[in-house]
Amino acid sequence: MTSSKLRLGVAGLGRAFTLMLPTLANDTRIQLVAATDPQPLACAQFERDFGIACDPNFEALCANPKVQAIYIATPHQLHAAQVEMAAAHGKHVMVEKPMALTLDECTRMIEATARAGVVLMVGHSHSFNAPILKAHQLIQSGAFGRVRMIHALNYTDFLYRPRRPEELDTRAGGGVIFSQAAHQIDIVRLLGGGCVNSVMAHTGAWDAARPTEGAYSALLGFEGGAFASMSYNGYGHFDSDRWMDGIGELGQTKNWAEHGIARKRLMNASTASDEATLKASRNYGAAQWSGSLALPPNAQHQHFGPIIVSCDHADLRPTPQGVWIDGDFDVKLDALEPPPLPRSEVIDELYNAIVHSKPVLHSGIWARATTAVSLAILNSAQSGQIQIPTHQMPPAY
Amino acid sequence: MTSSKLRLGVAGLGRAFTLMLPTLANDTRIQLVAATDPQPLACAQFERDFGIACDPNFEALCANPKVQAIYIATPHQLHAAQVEMAAAHGKHVMVEKPMALTLDECTRMIEATARAGVVLMVGHSHSFNAPILKAHQLIQSGAFGRVRMIHALNYTDFLYRPRRPEELDTRAGGGVIFSQAAHQIDIVRLLGGGCVNSVMAHTGAWDAARPTEGAYSALLGFEGGAFASMSYNGYGHFDSDRWMDGIGELGQTKNWAEHGIARKRLMNASTASDEATLKASRNYGAAQWSGSLALPPNAQHQHFGPIIVSCDHADLRPTPQGVWIDGDFDVKLDALEPPPLPRSEVIDELYNAIVHSKPVLHSGIWARATTAVSLAILNSAQSGQIQIPTHQMPPAY
Repeated sequence: MTSSKLRLGVAGLGRAFTLMLPTLANDTRIQLVAATDPQPLACAQFERDFGIACDPNFEALCANPKVQAIYIATPHQLHAAQVEMAAAHGKHVMVEKPMALTLDECTRMIEATARAGVVLMVGHSHSFNAPILKAHQLIQSGAFGRVRMIHALNYTDFLYRPRRPEELDTRAGGGVIFSQAAHQIDIVRLLGGGCVNSVMAHTGAWDAARPTEGAYSALLGFEGGAFASMSYNGYGHFDSDRWMDGIGELGQTKNWAEHGIARKRLMNASTASDEATLKASRNYGAAQWSGSLALPPNAQHQHFGPIIVSCDHADLRPTPQGVWIDGDFDVKLDALEPPPLPRSEVIDELYNAIVHSKPVLHSGIWARATTAVSLAILNSAQSGQIQIPTHQMPPAY
Repeated sequence: MTSSKLRLGVAGLGRAFTLMLPTLANDTRIQLVAATDPQPLACAQFERDFGIACDPNFEALCANPKVQAIYIATPHQLHAAQVEMAAAHGKHVMVEKPMALTLDECTRMIEATARAGVVLMVGHSHSFNAPILKAHQLIQSGAFGRVRMIHALNYTDFLYRPRRPEELDTRAGGGVIFSQAAHQIDIVRLLGGGCVNSVMAHTGAWDAARPTEGAYSALLGFEGGAFASMSYNGYGHFDSDRWMDGIGELGQTKNWAEHGIARKRLMNASTASDEATLKASRNYGAAQWSGSLALPPNAQHQHFGPIIVSCDHADLRPTPQGVWIDGDFDVKLDALEPPPLPRSEVIDELYNAIVHSKPVLHSGIWARATTAVSLAILNSAQSGQIQIPTHQMPPAY
């Protein structure tokens, strides 16, 4: 019965999907068999690209017997109900981060997939990146002693990329805590042992025209005594890719002449409606769509900003080239081959889980714990108090 | 009566003094007129270098009519009593950081100098550095809007430099909180407005052979809503000068081949006594003393690791070359001339205060507020609770 290819249906052909597109189009383990999206232009592009019908009916996708697994890349607030429906139809699920906006929703998703006996995987997130997984392996080897302290930062232009109004409303899942902290927390939890027992945070929302969190600094305590400091700033000034050898989040070489380009583009959109139109114009299949199925040339490993994991006998730094090991007496790079195609690590985990029944690292219960820390950051910043996140757990392997 | 030169006596010819030596020997506004130290070798070197008698009697230094001001660079725990004695003799005082180990000591020092009508300045600290002062000016100009978020980090080999036993005992003022956080807090307070209203911190002391804090991460809240994240790691693995264009704390070009050299040197010192001997052998005037009065060649501005000050319309980054301004639409360097001699900013402030009666930025009440934050970091890490530091104040100008 087992096909050598995983037959995948896609729900939602928005930005998250376009970031996975080179992977889905080129990883030979994946066969796209169906898609759904409310936008006719996106559906039409999918039909052109893959020769497969696409329509707005999510339930039909769930019922489609050709579909083994569904990649849910719809707006955050739809995730819970859609995962429940997919599970009810016996489909495996990969759902984009953030998993959901509340812990109750996460629990519903976990329970629905467990009842149905299907895989639930949450991603893409940058904790799938090969250099992060390599750092995790190096830690697990015990060669460098215990993890004591982690530092993570990322300075980007996130807040000035074109948005739909809900993406600028925290209550609707907007802002950097839901969209960006989810990456950083996932990475830091993976490398720090997974179980966060205290969170103190400040958040910043200082552009009144974009009234959601654009920045944060958080301090996490871990069971066992390690701690992590995480900072994120999406206000488009300093770019921390300068500390990643000029390589961007997607593994591309940065063009520093493009400083401020996100803000410049937004200046042509004076209302929320203009901005949503601007965003839509660049979507998959729309007038300004410039993406393709082709693999990006010369891409290095993806990253989410500088990460320093301090162990007893070395600081480990995952970078686009591998993991730098700054040890007691020497500095060396544990080099990784350039990636065969972007985000193949995501397919590794999904394929192995569904086809080979291997355990999922980025499971529902793992991602619920990350969501709990995201919510603790928001609550700590709002209350000025330390928060103790619930549902924490160590990595499955 | 006013001489054009400031007649300075030095108390303590240890490491802090040797770091100020090129400044004190070459700044034409300074005339060294006396010195005191318990070590005959150090005194003998001072006599060779400056042709001025040196002896162990601190009170005689205070009573010396040639002395206008005393630079107190003795071990931390002696600062309070020595400042009181200097003030009682009507001498102006520059006392090294950390100002003292308790707030009561700080208050005694402030009151003694106020009663005597003499200047009390606390330094050197790296918040005197011209690029930091330039960043402060840029903030004060209002051109970039309000300060919203500050990020500071520094990864060094501090813990593996040779130490006396007390320097590895937090109760005696050892460890990175007293010695190193004092720099970072001073910088962050200067740029963040000065008034810290919450502190949450974790500290790390994970080398049992050196049982004091070697690392910390702290989150500071400021009056007005700005926040700062500070991380320090002195365990000698990653070196954050890699993010400062390869320029070291003292403005020197780093030699990466020297990675691990501090640990290697310590391997020859197996007991605390051996280590104290090793440290002493490199002191001023001792067998391995290799310093000189000469100005370091090609030195750039000193620094204390990467600092990013996020304002409404730019991130400001003080570096050895000046202040990088990553703005809304462009990136530019507000360049500073290379320093005429290291730490001349310290003499600027001291000389102007004593000779021209200008206000002191790094005053006793300023440094007490910094000490309060240092102690809050220790208390927060020990209790796991948020601390509210006392005695906070904005910069004097």
